[in-house]
Amino acid sequence: MSLFSEDTAVQRDSQGWSAEINPRWNVGENPNGGYLLAIALRALVEETGRPDPVSVTAHYLSPPKAGPIQVRTEIVKPGRSFVTATASLIQGDRERVRITGAFSDLTERQGPTRISARPPDIPGPEDCVGLIELTSQAGRRVPEVMNRFDLRLPPDSPWGAPGEGDPFEITGWIRFADGSDPDPLSAMAFADAFPPTLLGAVAGGWVPTIELTVHLRTRPSPGWLLGTFRTRVLVDGLLEEDGELWDSDGRPVALSRQLAMVLSV
Amino acid sequence: MSLFSEDTAVQRDSQGWSAEINPRWNVGENPNGGYLLAIALRALVEETGRPDPVSVTAHYLSPPKAGPIQVRTEIVKPGRSFVTATASLIQGDRERVRITGAFSDLTERQGPTRISARPPDIPGPEDCVGLIELTSQAGRRVPEVMNRFDLRLPPDSPWGAPGEGDPFEITGWIRFADGSDPDPLSAMAFADAFPPTLLGAVAGGWVPTIELTVHLRTRPSPGWLLGTFRTRVLVDGLLEEDGELWDSDGRPVALSRQLAMVLSV
Repeated sequence: MSLFSEDTAVQRDSQGWSAEINPRWNVGENPNGGYLLAIALRALVEETGRPDPVSVTAHYLSPPKAGPIQVRTEIVKPGRSFVTATASLIQGDRERVRITGAFSDLTERQGPTRISARPPDIPGPEDCVGLIELTSQAGRRVPEVMNRFDLRLPPDSPWGAPGEGDPFEITGWIRFADGSDPDPLSAMAFADAFPPTLLGAVAGGWVPTIELTVHLRTRPSPGWLLGTFRTRVLVDGLLEEDGELWDSDGRPVALSRQLAMVLSV
Repeated sequence: MSLFSEDTAVQRDSQGWSAEINPRWNVGENPNGGYLLAIALRALVEETGRPDPVSVTAHYLSPPKAGPIQVRTEIVKPGRSFVTATASLIQGDRERVRITGAFSDLTERQGPTRISARPPDIPGPEDCVGLIELTSQAGRRVPEVMNRFDLRLPPDSPWGAPGEGDPFEITGWIRFADGSDPDPLSAMAFADAFPPTLLGAVAGGWVPTIELTVHLRTRPSPGWLLGTFRTRVLVDGLLEEDGELWDSDGRPVALSRQLAMVLSV
Protein backbone atom coordinates (compact mmCIF):
# COMPACT_ATOMS: atom_id res chain seq x y z
CA MET A 1 0.00 0.00 0.00
CA SER A 2 1.38 3.43 -0.91
CA LEU A 3 1.97 6.08 1.72
CA PHE A 4 -0.56 8.27 -0.10
CA SER A 5 -3.30 5.61 0.06
CA GLU A 6 -2.49 5.01 3.72
CA ASP A 7 -2.54 8.70 4.66
CA THR A 8 -5.76 9.48 2.78
CA ALA A 9 -7.69 6.45 4.09
CA VAL A 10 -11.20 7.14 5.39
CA GLN A 11 -13.29 5.10 7.83
CA ARG A 12 -17.08 5.05 7.89
CA ASP A 13 -18.51 6.16 11.21
CA SER A 14 -21.93 7.03 12.62
CA GLN A 15 -21.80 10.58 11.23
CA GLY A 16 -20.26 9.88 7.85
CA TRP A 17 -16.55 9.40 7.47
CA SER A 18 -13.42 10.12 9.48
CA ALA A 19 -9.76 10.33 8.59
CA GLU A 20 -6.42 11.21 10.13
CA ILE A 21 -4.38 14.09 8.72
CA ASN A 22 -0.75 13.04 8.79
CA PRO A 23 1.70 15.96 9.27
CA ARG A 24 4.11 14.52 6.72
CA TRP A 25 1.96 16.26 4.06
CA ASN A 26 2.40 19.66 5.74
CA VAL A 27 3.66 22.95 4.37
CA GLY A 28 4.80 24.49 7.64
CA GLU A 29 1.92 23.99 10.05
CA ASN A 30 -0.71 23.54 7.34
CA PRO A 31 -1.60 20.38 5.44
CA ASN A 32 -1.17 20.60 1.67
CA GLY A 33 -4.46 21.47 -0.06
CA GLY A 34 -4.25 18.69 -2.63
CA TYR A 35 -3.74 16.16 0.17
CA LEU A 36 -6.87 17.41 1.98
CA LEU A 37 -8.80 17.26 -1.29
CA ALA A 38 -7.74 13.63 -1.77
CA ILE A 39 -9.07 12.66 1.69
CA ALA A 40 -12.47 14.14 0.81
CA LEU A 41 -12.42 12.46 -2.61
CA ARG A 42 -11.68 9.09 -1.03
CA ALA A 43 -14.98 9.38 0.86
CA LEU A 44 -16.86 10.79 -2.15
CA VAL A 45 -15.72 8.01 -4.48
CA GLU A 46 -17.14 5.52 -1.95
CA GLU A 47 -20.40 7.45 -1.52
CA THR A 48 -21.01 8.03 -5.22
CA GLY A 49 -19.86 4.59 -6.35
CA ARG A 50 -17.98 6.32 -9.17
CA PRO A 51 -14.19 6.06 -9.36
CA ASP A 52 -13.37 9.22 -11.32
CA PRO A 53 -13.71 12.80 -10.06
CA VAL A 54 -14.23 14.40 -13.48
CA SER A 55 -14.66 17.86 -11.98
CA VAL A 56 -14.02 18.80 -8.37
CA THR A 57 -13.84 22.18 -6.72
CA ALA A 58 -12.45 22.77 -3.24
CA HIS A 59 -12.94 25.97 -1.28
CA TYR A 60 -10.32 26.30 1.46
CA LEU A 61 -11.92 27.98 4.45
CA SER A 62 -9.63 27.54 7.42
CA PRO A 63 -6.53 25.31 7.57
CA PRO A 64 -6.95 22.24 9.79
CA LYS A 65 -4.09 20.77 11.82
CA ALA A 66 -2.67 17.27 11.75
CA GLY A 67 -4.90 14.80 13.56
CA PRO A 68 -8.45 13.52 13.26
CA ILE A 69 -10.85 15.12 10.79
CA GLN A 70 -14.48 14.41 9.93
CA VAL A 71 -15.75 14.09 6.35
CA ARG A 72 -19.46 14.80 5.97
CA THR A 73 -20.81 13.95 2.54
CA GLU A 74 -24.03 14.66 0.71
CA ILE A 75 -25.23 13.31 -2.64
CA VAL A 76 -26.54 16.38 -4.47
CA LYS A 77 -27.78 14.50 -7.49
CA PRO A 78 -27.63 10.81 -8.32
CA GLY A 79 -27.44 9.89 -11.98
CA ARG A 80 -26.41 7.23 -14.41
CA SER A 81 -23.51 9.06 -16.09
CA PHE A 82 -22.62 11.56 -13.39
CA VAL A 83 -23.19 11.68 -9.66
CA THR A 84 -22.80 15.12 -8.09
CA ALA A 85 -21.85 15.27 -4.43
CA THR A 86 -20.35 17.54 -1.79
CA ALA A 87 -18.09 16.94 1.17
CA SER A 88 -17.19 19.09 4.15
CA LEU A 89 -13.97 18.54 6.06
CA ILE A 90 -14.67 19.39 9.68
CA GLN A 91 -12.26 19.70 12.58
CA GLY A 92 -12.99 21.19 15.98
CA ASP A 93 -16.58 21.94 14.94
CA ARG A 94 -15.34 24.22 12.16
CA GLU A 95 -15.69 23.52 8.47
CA ARG A 96 -12.21 23.64 6.93
CA VAL A 97 -12.76 22.72 3.27
CA ARG A 98 -15.93 22.50 1.17
CA ILE A 99 -15.70 20.23 -1.88
CA THR A 100 -18.23 19.85 -4.69
CA GLY A 101 -17.69 17.38 -7.49
CA ALA A 102 -19.14 15.48 -10.42
CA PHE A 103 -18.12 11.82 -10.41
CA SER A 104 -18.23 9.35 -13.26
CA ASP A 105 -16.53 6.31 -14.70
CA LEU A 106 -14.26 7.53 -17.48
CA THR A 107 -13.92 4.05 -18.99
CA GLU A 108 -17.64 4.04 -19.78
CA ARG A 109 -17.66 7.36 -21.62
CA GLN A 110 -18.06 7.42 -25.38
CA GLY A 111 -17.67 10.28 -27.80
CA PRO A 112 -15.20 12.06 -30.04
CA THR A 113 -11.59 12.67 -29.04
CA ARG A 114 -9.54 15.58 -30.41
CA ILE A 115 -6.52 16.83 -28.51
CA SER A 116 -4.68 19.91 -29.77
CA ALA A 117 -2.85 20.53 -26.50
CA ARG A 118 0.65 19.08 -26.35
CA PRO A 119 2.77 18.12 -23.35
CA PRO A 120 5.58 20.56 -22.57
CA ASP A 121 8.95 19.67 -24.05
CA ILE A 122 11.57 19.31 -21.32
CA PRO A 123 14.47 16.90 -20.75
CA GLY A 124 13.55 13.49 -19.29
CA PRO A 125 13.39 13.00 -15.52
CA GLU A 126 16.88 11.47 -15.45
CA ASP A 127 18.27 14.72 -16.89
CA CYS A 128 16.36 16.99 -14.50
CA VAL A 129 17.27 18.16 -11.00
CA GLY A 130 15.39 17.36 -7.82
CA LEU A 131 13.32 20.18 -6.36
CA ILE A 132 14.63 19.41 -2.88
CA GLU A 133 18.18 19.92 -4.11
CA LEU A 134 17.26 23.17 -5.90
CA THR A 135 15.40 24.44 -2.86
CA SER A 136 18.30 23.72 -0.53
CA GLN A 137 20.74 25.36 -2.96
CA ALA A 138 18.53 28.46 -3.02
CA GLY A 139 18.76 28.62 0.75
CA ARG A 140 15.05 27.96 1.24
CA ARG A 141 13.44 25.62 3.71
CA VAL A 142 12.14 22.36 2.29
CA PRO A 143 8.49 21.96 3.35
CA GLU A 144 7.77 18.51 4.77
CA VAL A 145 5.29 17.67 1.99
CA MET A 146 8.07 18.04 -0.57
CA ASN A 147 9.65 14.86 0.78
CA ARG A 148 6.57 12.90 -0.27
CA PHE A 149 7.18 13.61 -3.94
CA ASP A 150 9.99 13.08 -6.38
CA LEU A 151 9.66 16.34 -8.29
CA ARG A 152 12.28 17.22 -10.88
CA LEU A 153 12.83 20.44 -12.83
CA PRO A 154 14.95 21.09 -15.92
CA PRO A 155 18.50 22.05 -14.93
CA ASP A 156 18.11 25.49 -16.54
CA SER A 157 14.77 26.09 -14.82
CA PRO A 158 14.46 29.76 -13.87
CA TRP A 159 12.58 28.60 -10.80
CA GLY A 160 15.67 27.15 -9.15
CA ALA A 161 17.00 30.52 -8.09
CA PRO A 162 14.87 33.49 -7.06
CA GLY A 163 14.01 35.14 -10.32
CA GLU A 164 11.20 36.50 -12.35
CA GLY A 165 9.18 34.95 -15.13
CA ASP A 166 6.74 36.35 -17.63
CA PRO A 167 4.52 34.41 -17.50
CA PHE A 168 5.38 32.90 -14.15
CA GLU A 169 5.60 29.20 -14.74
CA ILE A 170 7.02 25.95 -13.50
CA THR A 171 7.30 22.68 -15.44
CA GLY A 172 8.63 19.36 -14.20
CA TRP A 173 8.25 15.65 -13.62
CA ILE A 174 6.45 14.30 -10.59
CA ARG A 175 5.81 10.96 -8.91
CA PHE A 176 5.51 9.78 -5.34
CA ALA A 177 8.80 9.46 -3.49
CA ASP A 178 7.84 5.89 -2.49
CA GLY A 179 7.66 4.93 -6.17
CA SER A 180 3.93 4.11 -6.17
CA ASP A 181 2.10 4.74 -9.43
CA PRO A 182 -0.46 7.51 -9.95
CA ASP A 183 -4.19 6.78 -9.84
CA PRO A 184 -7.18 9.12 -10.30
CA LEU A 185 -7.05 10.46 -6.73
CA SER A 186 -3.31 10.95 -6.55
CA ALA A 187 -3.49 12.79 -9.88
CA MET A 188 -5.79 15.30 -8.16
CA ALA A 189 -3.21 15.73 -5.39
CA PHE A 190 -0.39 16.23 -7.91
CA ALA A 191 -2.37 19.22 -9.22
CA ASP A 192 -1.47 21.02 -5.98
CA ALA A 193 1.98 19.56 -5.38
CA PHE A 194 4.19 21.96 -7.32
CA PRO A 195 5.62 25.03 -5.58
CA PRO A 196 3.87 28.33 -6.28
CA THR A 197 4.62 29.77 -9.71
CA LEU A 198 5.39 33.11 -8.06
CA LEU A 199 7.82 31.75 -5.49
CA GLY A 200 11.08 33.65 -5.48
CA ALA A 201 9.73 36.34 -7.81
CA VAL A 202 6.78 37.93 -6.04
CA ALA A 203 5.88 35.62 -3.20
CA GLY A 204 8.09 35.09 -0.20
CA GLY A 205 6.48 31.92 1.04
CA TRP A 206 3.07 30.39 1.36
CA VAL A 207 0.58 31.35 -1.38
CA PRO A 208 -2.71 30.13 0.12
CA THR A 209 -5.32 28.65 -2.16
CA ILE A 210 -8.80 30.16 -2.03
CA GLU A 211 -10.32 27.74 -4.52
CA LEU A 212 -8.98 24.83 -6.55
CA THR A 213 -10.79 23.10 -9.41
CA VAL A 214 -9.41 19.98 -11.08
CA HIS A 215 -10.83 18.12 -14.06
CA LEU A 216 -9.71 14.52 -14.37
CA ARG A 217 -9.68 13.86 -18.11
CA THR A 218 -7.84 10.54 -18.43
CA ARG A 219 -6.83 7.92 -15.89
CA PRO A 220 -3.03 8.12 -15.66
CA SER A 221 -0.77 5.36 -16.94
CA PRO A 222 1.89 4.09 -14.52
CA GLY A 223 5.10 6.09 -14.22
CA TRP A 224 6.01 9.76 -14.15
CA LEU A 225 3.56 12.58 -14.68
CA LEU A 226 4.65 15.74 -16.42
CA GLY A 227 3.19 18.88 -14.87
CA THR A 228 3.18 22.49 -16.00
CA PHE A 229 1.73 25.41 -14.04
CA ARG A 230 1.39 28.99 -15.17
CA THR A 231 0.24 32.36 -13.82
CA ARG A 232 -0.66 35.05 -16.34
CA VAL A 233 -2.89 37.38 -14.33
CA LEU A 234 -1.83 38.67 -10.91
CA VAL A 235 -4.07 41.58 -9.89
CA ASP A 236 -3.88 43.19 -6.44
CA GLY A 237 -2.39 40.05 -4.94
CA LEU A 238 -4.88 37.57 -6.42
CA LEU A 239 -3.68 35.13 -9.06
CA GLU A 240 -4.69 32.04 -10.98
CA GLU A 241 -2.48 28.99 -11.34
CA ASP A 242 -3.39 27.01 -14.43
CA GLY A 243 -2.05 23.49 -14.49
CA GLU A 244 -1.81 20.55 -16.82
CA LEU A 245 -0.73 17.02 -15.95
CA TRP A 246 0.36 14.57 -18.64
CA ASP A 247 1.03 10.87 -18.17
CA SER A 248 3.92 8.71 -19.37
CA ASP A 249 1.97 7.87 -22.54
CA GLY A 250 1.68 11.59 -23.38
CA ARG A 251 -2.03 11.75 -22.55
CA PRO A 252 -3.68 14.70 -20.78
CA VAL A 253 -4.59 13.47 -17.30
CA ALA A 254 -5.87 16.60 -15.60
CA LEU A 255 -6.45 20.30 -16.08
CA SER A 256 -6.42 22.40 -12.94
CA ARG A 257 -6.94 26.01 -11.99
CA GLN A 258 -6.70 27.63 -8.62
CA LEU A 259 -7.35 31.12 -7.33
CA ALA A 260 -4.69 31.98 -4.78
CA MET A 261 -3.49 34.96 -2.79
CA VAL A 262 -0.03 36.44 -2.27
CA LEU A 263 0.55 36.91 1.43
CA SER A 264 3.93 38.62 1.42
CA VAL A 265 5.86 40.51 -1.21
CA MET B 1 -32.83 49.29 -15.52
CA SER B 2 -31.24 46.81 -17.93
CA LEU B 3 -33.10 43.75 -19.14
CA PHE B 4 -30.42 41.62 -17.51
CA SER B 5 -30.91 43.25 -14.10
CA GLU B 6 -34.66 42.92 -14.47
CA ASP B 7 -34.56 39.26 -15.48
CA THR B 8 -32.10 38.23 -12.76
CA ALA B 9 -33.89 40.09 -9.94
CA VAL B 10 -34.45 38.12 -6.73
CA GLN B 11 -37.02 38.67 -3.98
CA ARG B 12 -36.54 37.66 -0.38
CA ASP B 13 -39.21 35.28 0.84
CA SER B 14 -39.82 33.14 3.92
CA GLN B 15 -37.57 30.32 2.67
CA GLY B 16 -34.76 32.40 1.20
CA TRP B 17 -35.07 33.96 -2.21
CA SER B 18 -37.21 33.54 -5.28
CA ALA B 19 -36.83 34.62 -8.88
CA GLU B 20 -38.53 34.26 -12.23
CA ILE B 21 -36.71 32.61 -15.12
CA ASN B 22 -37.57 34.53 -18.26
CA PRO B 23 -37.60 32.38 -21.44
CA ARG B 24 -35.92 35.13 -23.45
CA TRP B 25 -32.59 33.75 -22.06
CA ASN B 26 -33.34 30.24 -23.41
CA VAL B 27 -31.33 27.99 -25.67
CA GLY B 28 -34.17 25.92 -27.04
CA GLU B 29 -36.19 24.84 -24.01
CA ASN B 30 -33.36 25.38 -21.53
CA PRO B 31 -32.29 28.60 -19.83
CA ASN B 32 -28.69 29.63 -20.53
CA GLY B 33 -26.34 28.46 -17.77
CA GLY B 34 -24.68 31.84 -17.26
CA TYR B 35 -28.09 33.46 -16.84
CA LEU B 36 -29.04 30.93 -14.14
CA LEU B 37 -25.70 31.52 -12.43
CA ALA B 38 -26.38 35.26 -12.38
CA ILE B 39 -29.73 34.75 -10.63
CA ALA B 40 -28.02 32.75 -7.89
CA LEU B 41 -25.22 35.32 -7.63
CA ARG B 42 -27.75 38.12 -7.23
CA ALA B 43 -28.99 36.40 -4.05
CA LEU B 44 -25.48 35.51 -2.87
CA VAL B 45 -24.17 39.05 -3.25
CA GLU B 46 -27.05 40.17 -1.01
CA GLU B 47 -26.48 37.42 1.53
CA THR B 48 -22.71 37.84 1.74
CA GLY B 49 -22.72 41.63 1.61
CA ARG B 50 -19.83 41.41 -0.87
CA PRO B 51 -20.28 42.72 -4.41
CA ASP B 52 -17.66 40.65 -6.24
CA PRO B 53 -17.85 36.90 -6.93
CA VAL B 54 -14.08 36.32 -7.10
CA SER B 55 -14.50 32.60 -7.65
CA VAL B 56 -17.77 30.82 -8.33
CA THR B 57 -18.46 27.29 -9.43
CA ALA B 58 -21.81 26.08 -10.73
CA HIS B 59 -22.75 22.42 -11.12
CA TYR B 60 -25.64 22.01 -13.56
CA LEU B 61 -27.80 19.13 -12.36
CA SER B 62 -31.08 19.28 -14.27
CA PRO B 63 -32.27 22.13 -16.52
CA PRO B 64 -35.16 24.15 -15.07
CA LYS B 65 -37.90 25.63 -17.23
CA ALA B 66 -38.97 29.25 -17.55
CA GLY B 67 -41.04 30.36 -14.57
CA PRO B 68 -40.60 30.66 -10.81
CA ILE B 69 -37.47 29.29 -9.15
CA GLN B 70 -36.33 29.19 -5.53
CA VAL B 71 -32.84 30.22 -4.44
CA ARG B 72 -31.73 28.67 -1.14
CA THR B 73 -28.53 30.14 0.20
CA GLU B 74 -26.12 29.16 2.96
CA ILE B 75 -23.12 31.08 4.30
CA VAL B 76 -20.38 28.47 4.51
CA LYS B 77 -17.82 30.75 6.11
CA PRO B 78 -18.05 34.42 7.01
CA GLY B 79 -14.83 36.40 6.91
CA ARG B 80 -13.38 39.86 6.61
CA SER B 81 -11.73 39.48 3.18
CA PHE B 82 -13.75 36.63 1.74
CA VAL B 83 -17.18 35.24 2.46
CA THR B 84 -17.80 31.73 1.15
CA ALA B 85 -21.37 30.74 0.41
CA THR B 86 -23.48 28.28 -1.56
CA ALA B 87 -26.79 28.54 -3.35
CA SER B 88 -29.18 25.93 -4.69
CA LEU B 89 -31.60 26.73 -7.49
CA ILE B 90 -34.72 24.67 -6.86
CA GLN B 91 -37.74 24.17 -9.11
CA GLY B 92 -40.47 21.57 -8.66
CA ASP B 93 -38.76 20.25 -5.52
CA ARG B 94 -35.67 19.35 -7.53
CA GLU B 95 -32.30 21.00 -7.20
CA ARG B 96 -31.30 22.30 -10.64
CA VAL B 97 -27.99 24.08 -10.06
CA ARG B 98 -25.58 24.05 -7.09
CA ILE B 99 -23.34 27.11 -6.79
CA THR B 100 -20.39 27.60 -4.45
CA GLY B 101 -18.48 30.85 -4.36
CA ALA B 102 -16.00 33.08 -2.58
CA PHE B 103 -17.15 36.70 -2.45
CA SER B 104 -15.09 39.79 -1.77
CA ASP B 105 -14.79 43.48 -2.54
CA LEU B 106 -12.13 43.80 -5.23
CA THR B 107 -11.69 47.53 -4.60
CA GLU B 108 -10.41 46.75 -1.09
CA ARG B 109 -7.76 44.26 -2.18
CA GLN B 110 -4.11 45.23 -2.04
CA GLY B 111 -1.07 43.48 -3.41
CA PRO B 112 1.18 43.18 -6.42
CA THR B 113 -0.11 43.32 -10.00
CA ARG B 114 1.68 41.62 -12.91
CA ILE B 115 -0.20 40.73 -16.04
CA SER B 116 1.55 38.80 -18.79
CA ALA B 117 -1.66 37.73 -20.53
CA ARG B 118 -2.69 39.97 -23.42
CA PRO B 119 -6.09 40.51 -24.98
CA PRO B 120 -6.59 38.79 -28.34
CA ASP B 121 -5.89 40.97 -31.36
CA ILE B 122 -8.96 41.19 -33.59
CA PRO B 123 -10.60 44.02 -35.59
CA GLY B 124 -12.76 46.46 -33.60
CA PRO B 125 -16.46 45.71 -33.10
CA GLU B 126 -17.44 48.05 -35.95
CA ASP B 127 -15.37 45.87 -38.32
CA CYS B 128 -16.77 42.57 -37.04
CA VAL B 129 -19.91 40.69 -38.07
CA GLY B 130 -22.88 39.96 -35.85
CA LEU B 131 -23.21 36.38 -34.64
CA ILE B 132 -26.91 36.39 -35.47
CA GLU B 133 -26.13 37.26 -39.09
CA LEU B 134 -23.42 34.58 -39.28
CA THR B 135 -25.71 32.01 -37.72
CA SER B 136 -28.52 32.74 -40.12
CA GLN B 137 -26.12 32.63 -43.08
CA ALA B 138 -24.89 29.23 -41.92
CA GLY B 139 -28.49 28.03 -41.96
CA ARG B 140 -28.59 27.46 -38.20
CA ARG B 141 -31.36 28.41 -35.83
CA VAL B 142 -30.70 31.46 -33.69
CA PRO B 143 -31.31 30.52 -30.05
CA GLU B 144 -33.49 33.05 -28.23
CA VAL B 145 -30.71 33.97 -25.78
CA MET B 146 -28.57 35.17 -28.69
CA ASN B 147 -30.94 38.09 -29.15
CA ARG B 148 -30.03 39.35 -25.66
CA PHE B 149 -26.42 39.98 -26.70
CA ASP B 150 -24.66 41.95 -29.34
CA LEU B 151 -21.90 39.46 -30.14
CA ARG B 152 -19.58 40.16 -33.04
CA LEU B 153 -16.93 37.95 -34.63
CA PRO B 154 -14.12 38.88 -37.03
CA PRO B 155 -15.30 38.64 -40.65
CA ASP B 156 -12.77 35.89 -41.39
CA SER B 157 -13.77 33.92 -38.30
CA PRO B 158 -13.61 30.20 -39.06
CA TRP B 159 -16.60 29.82 -36.75
CA GLY B 160 -19.04 31.44 -39.14
CA ALA B 161 -19.30 28.43 -41.40
CA PRO B 162 -19.17 24.85 -40.21
CA GLY B 163 -15.49 24.04 -40.05
CA GLU B 164 -12.80 22.64 -37.90
CA GLY B 165 -10.30 24.34 -35.65
CA ASP B 166 -7.20 23.15 -33.90
CA PRO B 167 -7.51 24.31 -31.20
CA PHE B 168 -11.23 24.95 -31.36
CA GLU B 169 -11.70 28.57 -30.49
CA ILE B 170 -13.97 31.54 -30.80
CA THR B 171 -13.05 35.19 -30.20
CA GLY B 172 -15.31 38.20 -30.39
CA TRP B 173 -16.82 41.32 -28.88
CA ILE B 174 -19.79 41.15 -26.58
CA ARG B 175 -22.22 43.52 -24.89
CA PHE B 176 -25.89 43.45 -24.03
CA ALA B 177 -28.21 44.09 -26.97
CA ASP B 178 -29.99 46.78 -24.92
CA GLY B 179 -26.71 48.70 -24.65
CA SER B 180 -26.41 48.45 -20.86
CA ASP B 181 -22.88 48.37 -19.50
CA PRO B 182 -21.27 45.30 -17.94
CA ASP B 183 -21.03 44.92 -14.16
CA PRO B 184 -19.53 42.10 -12.04
CA LEU B 185 -22.60 39.85 -12.35
CA SER B 186 -23.17 40.36 -16.05
CA ALA B 187 -19.48 39.62 -16.64
CA MET B 188 -20.11 36.19 -15.10
CA ALA B 189 -22.99 35.65 -17.52
CA PHE B 190 -20.87 36.73 -20.50
CA ALA B 191 -18.52 33.86 -19.60
CA ASP B 192 -21.24 31.48 -20.81
CA ALA B 193 -22.71 33.57 -23.62
CA PHE B 194 -20.53 32.56 -26.55
CA PRO B 195 -21.58 29.63 -28.75
CA PRO B 196 -19.75 26.34 -28.10
CA THR B 197 -16.19 26.25 -29.45
CA LEU B 198 -16.96 22.90 -31.10
CA LEU B 199 -20.13 24.04 -32.87
CA GLY B 200 -20.06 23.20 -36.54
CA ALA B 201 -16.94 21.09 -36.18
CA VAL B 202 -17.76 18.30 -33.76
CA ALA B 203 -20.98 19.28 -32.05
CA GLY B 204 -24.30 19.50 -33.80
CA GLY B 205 -26.11 21.58 -31.23
CA TRP B 206 -26.35 21.95 -27.53
CA VAL B 207 -23.14 21.21 -25.61
CA PRO B 208 -24.41 20.99 -22.03
CA THR B 209 -22.26 22.32 -19.23
CA ILE B 210 -21.49 19.94 -16.37
CA GLU B 211 -19.55 22.49 -14.33
CA LEU B 212 -18.59 26.13 -14.85
CA THR B 213 -16.08 28.08 -12.77
CA VAL B 214 -15.54 31.80 -13.23
CA HIS B 215 -13.00 34.02 -11.49
CA LEU B 216 -13.84 37.71 -11.49
CA ARG B 217 -10.46 39.45 -11.53
CA THR B 218 -11.32 43.09 -12.32
CA ARG B 219 -14.60 44.99 -12.34
CA PRO B 220 -15.31 45.76 -15.99
CA SER B 221 -15.16 49.29 -17.39
CA PRO B 222 -18.18 50.44 -19.41
CA GLY B 223 -18.36 49.38 -23.05
CA TRP B 224 -17.59 46.26 -25.01
CA LEU B 225 -15.97 43.17 -23.55
CA LEU B 226 -13.61 41.10 -25.65
CA GLY B 227 -14.01 37.37 -25.11
CA THR B 228 -11.97 34.41 -26.24
CA PHE B 229 -12.83 30.76 -25.63
CA ARG B 230 -10.76 27.73 -26.43
CA THR B 231 -10.95 23.93 -26.29
CA ARG B 232 -7.70 21.99 -26.39
CA VAL B 233 -8.66 18.65 -24.86
CA LEU B 234 -11.72 16.73 -26.07
CA VAL B 235 -11.59 13.16 -24.75
CA ASP B 236 -14.46 10.69 -25.22
CA GLY B 237 -16.96 13.53 -25.60
CA LEU B 238 -15.85 15.56 -22.57
CA LEU B 239 -14.18 18.92 -23.14
CA GLU B 240 -13.04 22.03 -21.35
CA GLU B 241 -13.85 25.52 -22.56
CA ASP B 242 -11.30 28.02 -21.26
CA GLY B 243 -12.39 31.61 -21.48
CA GLU B 244 -11.00 35.09 -20.96
CA LEU B 245 -12.94 38.33 -20.88
CA TRP B 246 -11.20 41.67 -21.33
CA ASP B 247 -12.75 45.10 -20.82
CA SER B 248 -12.60 48.21 -22.99
CA ASP B 249 -9.52 49.42 -21.06
CA GLY B 250 -7.68 46.20 -21.95
CA ARG B 251 -7.92 44.81 -18.42
CA PRO B 252 -8.56 41.13 -17.64
CA VAL B 253 -12.08 40.94 -16.21
CA ALA B 254 -12.66 37.22 -15.84
CA LEU B 255 -11.12 33.82 -16.43
CA SER B 256 -13.55 30.96 -16.91
CA ARG B 257 -13.39 27.24 -17.45
CA GLN B 258 -16.18 24.81 -17.97
CA LEU B 259 -16.39 21.06 -18.34
CA ALA B 260 -18.95 20.23 -20.98
CA MET B 261 -20.21 17.24 -22.90
CA VAL B 262 -20.80 16.66 -26.62
CA LEU B 263 -24.27 15.26 -27.10
CA SER B 264 -24.29 14.64 -30.84
CA VAL B 265 -21.57 14.27 -33.43
